[in-house]
Amino acid sequence: MASPSTTSPPPDVLEKLVSLCKRRGFIFQSSEIYGGTGSVWDYGPLGVELKKNIKDRWWNALVRARDDIEGLDAAILMHPRVWEASGHVAGFTDPLVDCRNCKKRFRADDPKIKGTPGTPDGQCPACGMKGTLSQPRLFNLMFKTFMGPVEDSAAVVYLRPETAQGIYVNFLNVQQSTRQRVPFGIAQIGKAFRNEITPGNFIFRTREFEQMEMQFFVDPAPPDQQKTPYRTDMEWFEYWKEQRMQWHRDLGLSESRLMFHQHTPEELAHYARAAFDIQFDFGGTLGFQEIEGVHHRGDFDLGRHQEFSGKKLEYFDQPANRRYVPLVIETSVGADRTTLAVLVNGYREEQVEGEQEGRTVLGLHPGLAPIKVGVFPLVKKDGMPEFAEKLAADLRAKFPVFYDESGAIGRRYRRQDEVGTPFCVTVDGETIKDSTVTVRDRDTLKQERIAADRVGEWVARRI
Amino acid sequence: MASPSTTSPPPDVLEKLVSLCKRRGFIFQSSEIYGGTGSVWDYGPLGVELKKNIKDRWWNALVRARDDIEGLDAAILMHPRVWEASGHVAGFTDPLVDCRNCKKRFRADDPKIKGTPGTPDGQCPACGMKGTLSQPRLFNLMFKTFMGPVEDSAAVVYLRPETAQGIYVNFLNVQQSTRQRVPFGIAQIGKAFRNEITPGNFIFRTREFEQMEMQFFVDPAPPDQQKTPYRTDMEWFEYWKEQRMQWHRDLGLSESRLMFHQHTPEELAHYARAAFDIQFDFGGTLGFQEIEGVHHRGDFDLGRHQEFSGKKLEYFDQPANRRYVPLVIETSVGADRTTLAVLVNGYREEQVEGEQEGRTVLGLHPGLAPIKVGVFPLVKKDGMPEFAEKLAADLRAKFPVFYDESGAIGRRYRRQDEVGTPFCVTVDGETIKDSTVTVRDRDTLKQERIAADRVGEWVARRI
Repeated sequence: MASPSTTSPPPDVLEKLVSLCKRRGFIFQSSEIYGGTGSVWDYGPLGVELKKNIKDRWWNALVRARDDIEGLDAAILMHPRVWEASGHVAGFTDPLVDCRNCKKRFRADDPKIKGTPGTPDGQCPACGMKGTLSQPRLFNLMFKTFMGPVEDSAAVVYLRPETAQGIYVNFLNVQQSTRQRVPFGIAQIGKAFRNEITPGNFIFRTREFEQMEMQFFVDPAPPDQQKTPYRTDMEWFEYWKEQRMQWHRDLGLSESRLMFHQHTPEELAHYARAAFDIQFDFGGTLGFQEIEGVHHRGDFDLGRHQEFSGKKLEYFDQPANRRYVPLVIETSVGADRTTLAVLVNGYREEQVEGEQEGRTVLGLHPGLAPIKVGVFPLVKKDGMPEFAEKLAADLRAKFPVFYDESGAIGRRYRRQDEVGTPFCVTVDGETIKDSTVTVRDRDTLKQERIAADRVGEWVARRI
Repeated sequence: MASPSTTSPPPDVLEKLVSLCKRRGFIFQSSEIYGGTGSVWDYGPLGVELKKNIKDRWWNALVRARDDIEGLDAAILMHPRVWEASGHVAGFTDPLVDCRNCKKRFRADDPKIKGTPGTPDGQCPACGMKGTLSQPRLFNLMFKTFMGPVEDSAAVVYLRPETAQGIYVNFLNVQQSTRQRVPFGIAQIGKAFRNEITPGNFIFRTREFEQMEMQFFVDPAPPDQQKTPYRTDMEWFEYWKEQRMQWHRDLGLSESRLMFHQHTPEELAHYARAAFDIQFDFGGTLGFQEIEGVHHRGDFDLGRHQEFSGKKLEYFDQPANRRYVPLVIETSVGADRTTLAVLVNGYREEQVEGEQEGRTVLGLHPGLAPIKVGVFPLVKKDGMPEFAEKLAADLRAKFPVFYDESGAIGRRYRRQDEVGTPFCVTVDGETIKDSTVTVRDRDTLKQERIAADRVGEWVARRI
């Protein structure tokens, strides 16, 4: 069996993925038959499984496998005061400029604008007129809607621009109902919405997206004043930085495509005590971009909600006999960005020795692959389809299986390679005689002959 | 060991559940520290697990265990034309009346209104004035928002009031990318939003809710014209009615609390060929209410989207050499309502023979219970906590475990009964000598002594 020779990922990997994702049912443009909805995407049959596998992996690692993190699923629609407390009403804005001539609108920092907006030399990048650009005005990025039967300002609510605030306002509800002791965390997966001016790059920046956020609450006292000193806040920060980077490595993302980016003093929020992003190299013009933030937010969030709600958000530390507002270490990762990173990371085009046509492979981690096993009868006769269909049905009780009997066997392998299926099982003439099948590995292309009734166990060991 | 005697569910079960759910971390009022958001709820640590277990069970039964249903996760924000095609812009309305005196607003069919709104005898139920109620006016139940930087009518988008339309507009994308053949289905779990005038009854009717919808596409031709006759559309309808009812029974919902309700000619939508709801008896004043709808929608949905988008949504049936717009059998179940049904169904108050204090039990199906095993050291000494903590850590790799060492052992059992934990394991003096523990069954209260290293397997067999 020939072993494949991989070429490095093509620079236009994003464009190739957009096409592959539509053709194979990973991701479709939303409302496509109506011309699409701006920068909103729908996950198709394979995409929903891939994203669910990523989300379940996060949930299992943070919530189910640990006893110091609790889960939460707060609503998208929250009380409007939440966003005053969080600073989003006042500060979550982009400066925009309008062209009085062509009526187009641009980000004030759009590199295509020449000169200074609001002055005679400011030039519109669309119509080319000079002196027609307005002064920059602030535009809030939150989607606004109206709750209740009257459409007036009293009933304005926002679609949450982040899930974190649902965790902060429930801090005491969760702590008291679970009797958790600081240090502990609260984790949540959910949709958030931002009315971005310049969304784009496929599912990298979208107006509707899904976050996986965990807020970890720690004692603000110096270690010598803690009754049960464990880690200081900065030690917890370092701990979560490493834990989260390791999680991305465990998804199969290449070490060389991952790096930390420390926020510069200019990037750092005024309340933040330290902030690192985990960046992934998406290749092409996008390059290294944030997929997760690990931020030490101090006591800003709980402190602001105390102030705006008038309700104490203090934790009572019984052993130490102290009340305090805990510090927060936040880990916030985009489910869509991680899905895109996994797709980019796995995409490769290969030549296989002795074959003319190359192959496209999604080298997904077997645990993340939407389909775990392809099952094929070599030909459509001599009892092979019946044997293969029965085997597929048996395996489907354990994991997602794709049964395929149409076209040449090589073509069926290629179709599974392209969607990242790690293993393929072929039923042939030998099978009918001795109940053995061949199992083929997506990456090495090695084939092995094993008993048909051992396939389930063979696959389970490898995913 | 005494066996418990159950009393029938109390009539005020909903109120009792609201309190239990807050206290034990199933469900909190959203943005509670700000006075709450109208009829929006947050799922706490135990609630999020319970709901996730229900959703995963649905997904596994419909998508992963079958080869004729594909998954989908379409966005909440869709193209506004979708809701013109679906009829929601024109028809998804409630008639409302205003009081000119007190400025309050009511549903026109509010039973508290006396007389006829818009006439001199119409009486306001709030201020009591006569003749001050307006004529009924239509109010659309969709939440409206604005996409893009300009807040004008061209950019109006809606929060989807149902997930089904995401399935219809992606019908061909899914069919072509998966090469499925009719009959097949598309399934989706996701949030939907309705600006209800009279939401309420805890999580029964909320403005933000989660649906689990499956649309099954079938051949409209009479069986004798089908190349591969399988089931007629009405046979598929009957099939899904039974499948879906069985799914609810398998969640542990009592047979006596479940029934079908056939839509009367007045209830039936003009395009629907048949419609049944699955109702559950929530007890108290709520009684039997819809938790799922199984509806034969004909070719209305795909037909309308063809008309409004100008794109063909026809399936080409190769063996029969026919093109057609398939008929749709819809199954649509509320994830929140099912969660509430499971809670109501499981809630009971019991007297235990030989004990003074009664106990509250959530008799949840072990597969749905948020915590599978409670692990307790009998007392906090003699090595018991160390043994129990190690056992809890080992079990946590397999399923959610709660470790508890505080308070009397009876009280710890009661705390787990109240949140539906099916099994509790106690480490006592014997354990230290012979590595055996007692396992206790939540419902029968029977205790068994087994080897500590067999607990995982013992529990796994029962969930």
